[in-house]
Amino acid sequence: MREAQTVFVEDLVIGQTYERSFTASDAVIRAFADVSEDHNPIHTDEAFAATTPFRGRIAHGALLGAWISATIADGLPGRGSIYVSQSLMFKRAVKLDDTVTIGLTVTAIDTKTAHVTLSTVAKVRNKLYADGVAEVIAPKRPA
Amino acid sequence: MREAQTVFVEDLVIGQTYERSFTASDAVIRAFADVSEDHNPIHTDEAFAATTPFRGRIAHGALLGAWISATIADGLPGRGSIYVSQSLMFKRAVKLDDTVTIGLTVTAIDTKTAHVTLSTVAKVRNKLYADGVAEVIAPKRPA
Repeated sequence: MREAQTVFVEDLVIGQTYERSFTASDAVIRAFADVSEDHNPIHTDEAFAATTPFRGRIAHGALLGAWISATIADGLPGRGSIYVSQSLMFKRAVKLDDTVTIGLTVTAIDTKTAHVTLSTVAKVRNKLYADGVAEVIAPKRPA
Repeated sequence: MREAQTVFVEDLVIGQTYERSFTASDAVIRAFADVSEDHNPIHTDEAFAATTPFRGRIAHGALLGAWISATIADGLPGRGSIYVSQSLMFKRAVKLDDTVTIGLTVTAIDTKTAHVTLSTVAKVRNKLYADGVAEVIAPKRPA
């Protein structure tokens, strides 16, 4: 298991980035179908998915939301962050076995309230697949 | 497994609603931690979680996004929908074993482009836990 980190709000700077990669393997897609109860065969049945405009199995869009959340929660600001909001625009469908890199960039910091705004992007082979904005409350440095 | 439905864009009406309930069981939370790779102990370790302001284990916020997605994908507009965007504001943390009802309401329909806007809410014991807006492309009735 990967080590989590915490960046206290006092140590965050505008433009700070963090990234982490995930793979949309068969096991991950099937587990996400089970846990979300979204059993659309476009995600799990290659024969069906081949007949759709996507021409093959795709990951659930919401899986990108789960990975963005994990990247925030373990990486930036990391352990102790409280999720306030997330927006996400889907641009392209993630295919089976694609590796997705989630990139976070700090775009605003309110040191009084510890509210931090992050741009959140998902890329595959350096192409934009989804983007959005997250707002979190970052942990404060213990007094 | 629950039966999926499709509501074609021609049959959608403003104000149309759909809801579906999910439970944040221990098995679901652990599976979501694995699939998202978010192993924050606030979700999985009761002894640790009891020491936090939440005073016990909570579900990942992104799990609500997964359930909203599933409710759209299988219910309204249902099978064949294409996810364009989702926003989500988190209001309260879902606790272990809470049952969450996802409610969708159609708020706008563009019949030319088949773009449909939905209000998306997550409630526990009839209290608002998260809300947001989804945009999807609904399937068109076959000619």
